[in-house]
Amino acid sequence: MAESVVMGLSGGMDSATLLGFLINMEFDEIHCCSFYYGSTHNKYELQAADKIVAYYREHVPEIEIQHQKMDISSITTNFTSALLSGCNISIPEGYYCDANMRQTVVPGRNTIFAAIMMGLAESMEIPYIALGIHSGDHYIYPDCRPEYVKALDTLVYLASDRRVEVLTPFVHDTKSTILKLGDAIGVPYHLTRTCYKNQPLSCGVCGACNERLEAFAQLGKEDPIPYESSESSTHRGE
Amino acid sequence: MAESVVMGLSGGMDSATLLGFLINMEFDEIHCCSFYYGSTHNKYELQAADKIVAYYREHVPEIEIQHQKMDISSITTNFTSALLSGCNISIPEGYYCDANMRQTVVPGRNTIFAAIMMGLAESMEIPYIALGIHSGDHYIYPDCRPEYVKALDTLVYLASDRRVEVLTPFVHDTKSTILKLGDAIGVPYHLTRTCYKNQPLSCGVCGACNERLEAFAQLGKEDPIPYESSESSTHRGE
Repeated sequence: MAESVVMGLSGGMDSATLLGFLINMEFDEIHCCSFYYGSTHNKYELQAADKIVAYYREHVPEIEIQHQKMDISSITTNFTSALLSGCNISIPEGYYCDANMRQTVVPGRNTIFAAIMMGLAESMEIPYIALGIHSGDHYIYPDCRPEYVKALDTLVYLASDRRVEVLTPFVHDTKSTILKLGDAIGVPYHLTRTCYKNQPLSCGVCGACNERLEAFAQLGKEDPIPYESSESSTHRGE
Repeated sequence: MAESVVMGLSGGMDSATLLGFLINMEFDEIHCCSFYYGSTHNKYELQAADKIVAYYREHVPEIEIQHQKMDISSITTNFTSALLSGCNISIPEGYYCDANMRQTVVPGRNTIFAAIMMGLAESMEIPYIALGIHSGDHYIYPDCRPEYVKALDTLVYLASDRRVEVLTPFVHDTKSTILKLGDAIGVPYHLTRTCYKNQPLSCGVCGACNERLEAFAQLGKEDPIPYESSESSTHRGE
């Protein structure tokens, strides 16, 4: 039986791995949603999402991969977050455990994305939405925690009149566990984008870059993407 | 202490009553959100929302009423609903208990609205979002039922790191109970818009018009808005 799923594809490592995972789990139709929500690094993420989709379409042509990009930046006009270009707050450098990382929370982000994906899934008679949420984000981001995911699954199930359920296969996994899986199933990490900064080359010093580099370092692997700060990647890769 | 709230204002009776209610409950700052989501009757609703806000700003100038309109129609491009203009499905006529009324469900609508309002509330350090959900919509619309509202409140609380809660003061009330309250507190029903059809004059025969006319009839009141089908309003008013 053909199984379909709507998933969020940011262009980062976790959602790229989610796509690879769903392909391996024999979903026949995967509807990827990428959102332009006004963050400073958004355009680079979406370019990465395009490349990841193109890669998989070429490598697994038997699977139907749709890619829908939605510009929802009008709704974040009055939102506050260091990640939003309209807010003029500097992207903090450091680690996710640092207090200043709270500035990178985009209020409501995952709920807005999930609500849109759920509406789309119900409209297209697709029974699942999938998100690449993982445990590395629990500390900073409330909308990545297990209790949030449980509440979201209940909400989506009720809102859709029992037609749609939420899949978050990585909710209890670390970024390095996800990377280990992705490496085994051939996820094209060289095409992914993680850095929060508004620049084509990844900075290597923001919270997102640091988390990514740590994951590669924990597995003793070299991150295949180039960094502005060559110190970062070399340092962590040792 | 100044209390603030973010509320959804569609331009219909229930959200107009919600605004009147919140004003009476002594909220000092009310941030109204109106969404253009691509429905056939959306532009008439938004015109009504404008008039309702203008009315209250004039009548209660001591209360700060903000009004933010957001165009989110790009996200419903692939959604299926008789209410969406892109779908070319006729608006069904009849009553909410009729099977064909299920066609008027817009998948994910209240969840998308609530998620955006929650993000806005958290960004603006406002502790509440309010929705005009009521019991007359329970049968057809899954995202108006009490179990949905409970799940939404939990989700919003968790997603916002315990900063935002959901208010749905009318969740167990009928439309006529809401009308009775609104009438007592002077809600300007002559400015509201309920009809689902894409025409300036309300049709009087769609599910939404029928529900509205029944509420007025149950209270023995005349609906102050004009209808295309004069039969409807006269018939129900008897």
